[in-house]
Amino acid sequence: MYLPKVYKSEDFEVLKEIIANNAFASLLVHQGKILATKSMMLVNEDTPDNFYIETHLHRANPVAKCIVQSDQEVLCDFTGASSYISSSWYDHVNVSTWNYEAVQVYGKVEIMNDEELYQHLVKMTHKFESTQKCPVLADTIGEASIRDEMRGAIGMKIIPTEVKIKQKLSQNRDEKNLKKIIETLEKSESSSDNTMAERMKKYHL
Amino acid sequence: MYLPKVYKSEDFEVLKEIIANNAFASLLVHQGKILATKSMMLVNEDTPDNFYIETHLHRANPVAKCIVQSDQEVLCDFTGASSYISSSWYDHVNVSTWNYEAVQVYGKVEIMNDEELYQHLVKMTHKFESTQKCPVLADTIGEASIRDEMRGAIGMKIIPTEVKIKQKLSQNRDEKNLKKIIETLEKSESSSDNTMAERMKKYHL
Repeated sequence: MYLPKVYKSEDFEVLKEIIANNAFASLLVHQGKILATKSMMLVNEDTPDNFYIETHLHRANPVAKCIVQSDQEVLCDFTGASSYISSSWYDHVNVSTWNYEAVQVYGKVEIMNDEELYQHLVKMTHKFESTQKCPVLADTIGEASIRDEMRGAIGMKIIPTEVKIKQKLSQNRDEKNLKKIIETLEKSESSSDNTMAERMKKYHL
Repeated sequence: MYLPKVYKSEDFEVLKEIIANNAFASLLVHQGKILATKSMMLVNEDTPDNFYIETHLHRANPVAKCIVQSDQEVLCDFTGASSYISSSWYDHVNVSTWNYEAVQVYGKVEIMNDEELYQHLVKMTHKFESTQKCPVLADTIGEASIRDEMRGAIGMKIIPTEVKIKQKLSQNRDEKNLKKIIETLEKSESSSDNTMAERMKKYHL
């Protein structure tokens, strides 16, 4: 990650927000070449010194196979809010850019045992289903069905070895331009632009 | 990429759509560990046999430094539309999932010369600015300012060595459930869910 000081965060709460709101992220390993897959990730609610990421992959996923075969460090790559920022919104001529938030967690993998994987799937189901109109929680699916699904899956805890947090939110702009960017993003029809406006307001206004 | 047959595409038009609509993507290299950065990417409009990706990075970006120092293969990792698909929308009990589109382009890097980088920045500015209310195109910024910006940048063409295209769009569901998923995504307040509904309709209804 290219991380100039102005965009660097060391705030564990920011990390937790970005991961919680952007759980569908990339998991990467290297085996002769870089292998990348998408997976749903959770961060446990512990302290900066002992948090970990949890996820699961299909056993046939090349990334899962590589992890099982080798004890290498993996990379969890989260992209948070992201929006094109047009220089036409500024009060001066400039080049355009993208604002975004990102978290990278490098870590060592511990394969979950059956009980840990079961609890992980119950927790993940709860996280995503509880906001649905008619949630299908673990109780509805039934323990037997979940345990059946588990046979195709490998659960993983990723224990961090290195963490990077980036917030590129126009914090290098003066207040007038910052406000104009936020206003424009708030009026956008794209809900991801609206989210970016919220993030900029929360951290830099 | 985990790419079961049912989700695999070999359609070059799909690749071009996904890259064009999701230009803010990940560029990855390996130097002792995996290094990942975000960058804005364009695909040229050539045929499957001779297309390439173009992008630029800040010279101080660790990924740029690694690319300049070594002749290794890089990975351009594009995530297209993506949405949580709740099993509560189905007419039967099941586990939930994520739908998404993704493109991975592995390739060898050719560093652009000054003229190529200039043309790349003009093209990128046109792509993103032409839809703005008051576009700031290259003519407005001025050639001198663009050439000044170029001093901090490295332009790259990524010549593909391997390409993967994934469309996980509930195509494994029957028509009744597929329609219900699309309807629910269409009604969502999230514009990325709306985009997912469009993609599912375009390719599987």
